[in-house]
Amino acid sequence: MNVILDLCVVPVGVGVSVSNYVVACEKVLTEAGLTPHLHGYGTIVEGEWDQVLGAVKRCHEVVHEMGAPRISTTIKLGTRTDREQTVADKVRSVEEKLQGR
Amino acid sequence: MNVILDLCVVPVGVGVSVSNYVVACEKVLTEAGLTPHLHGYGTIVEGEWDQVLGAVKRCHEVVHEMGAPRISTTIKLGTRTDREQTVADKVRSVEEKLQGR
Amino acid sequence: MNVILDLCVVPVGVGVSVSNYVVACEKVLTEAGLTPHLHGYGTIVEGEWDQVLGAVKRCHEVVHEMGAPRISTTIKLGTRTDREQTVADKVRSVEEKLQGR
Amino acid sequence: MNVILDLCVVPVGVGVSVSNYVVACEKVLTEAGLTPHLHGYGTIVEGEWDQVLGAVKRCHEVVHEMGAPRISTTIKLGTRTDREQTVADKVRSVEEKLQGR
Repeated sequence: MNVILDLCVVPVGVGVSVSNYVVACEKVLTEAGLTPHLHGYGTIVEGEWDQVLGAVKRCHEVVHEMGAPRISTTIKLGTRTDREQTVADKVRSVEEKLQGR
Repeated sequence: MNVILDLCVVPVGVGVSVSNYVVACEKVLTEAGLTPHLHGYGTIVEGEWDQVLGAVKRCHEVVHEMGAPRISTTIKLGTRTDREQTVADKVRSVEEKLQGR
Repeated sequence: MNVILDLCVVPVGVGVSVSNYVVACEKVLTEAGLTPHLHGYGTIVEGEWDQVLGAVKRCHEVVHEMGAPRISTTIKLGTRTDREQTVADKVRSVEEKLQGR
Repeated sequence: MNVILDLCVVPVGVGVSVSNYVVACEKVLTEAGLTPHLHGYGTIVEGEWDQVLGAVKRCHEVVHEMGAPRISTTIKLGTRTDREQTVADKVRSVEEKLQGR
């Protein structure tokens, strides 16, 4: 089962700057064989369920190891069985319609 | 690693009534040994990461098997290493302060 | 337009305990004439769009005034035009099916 | 109060393809004077609270007018008082660290 997942990890109790933790998560996702697409409020990954969700678990482990005592994460997660669809497909189908093609 | 998770599974492409799918997910979570707490916009579960996230995967499989071609799920997910805290602890700490205790 | 909203306000940069901020938000919602239903990962409110979203804005203002320099909030928000449905209706329709009624 | 907001509008009860509704929302956001940044699981906007949240309300109105009887939206929403920070700032601070600068 393939999944497209939007991940936003918020470390709590480590001050106001969280970019070091976001950087660490980007590395974890890449090391898991995924290609994260960073955006303004999270990062998008796609792949086989266990690979993707295993990487999310590893993000929590790493952020705790870096010293964050508490993490509050928000995830959006889509699966479909009617057809294969990549992140690039999703974005393209909207952008083409926006441009009137 | 213990997790408290808020799960909201939205089946897409099966009409406007989704309660049968929500019911199926409640059963999946219970069969996984969890105790789901249903609320007005999702359900709360807590437990070991792999047990909880495995049950979420099973929810997607079951909702697809029931005929939903597409699912869009929103998850909030908290872990902490500073101390153990259950769902009941979280709610109680707020309610006691609200009541001025 | 009526809305059912799940609100989870996470203050960032104020330490690991956030229950005082959650309590303040519960009070803001109540003062706005809403009836918040606290659960294990947020609180549920329902009402007219402007009333509900105005109260969410007030929560951010109050949590900043309490000293939180940064807030990351997650909201789920449902509207429907086919029929009126309260939070109690939503929960009841699932619970009755779970109990085989 | 400035806000960075991640918006994901899911129309329910209108079939499996939702890109027309996403396109309509992009137009609503642009007409509201915002600059939406589409990504693989939503779109990012930033601006003054009332302008941004007013545009979100208009998205719900338009998607209902297009025929969707039910909408389930997920929003992540960040405010901060310690300093001004744009979406571009947030992304750049992570990307620079990822590239070892």
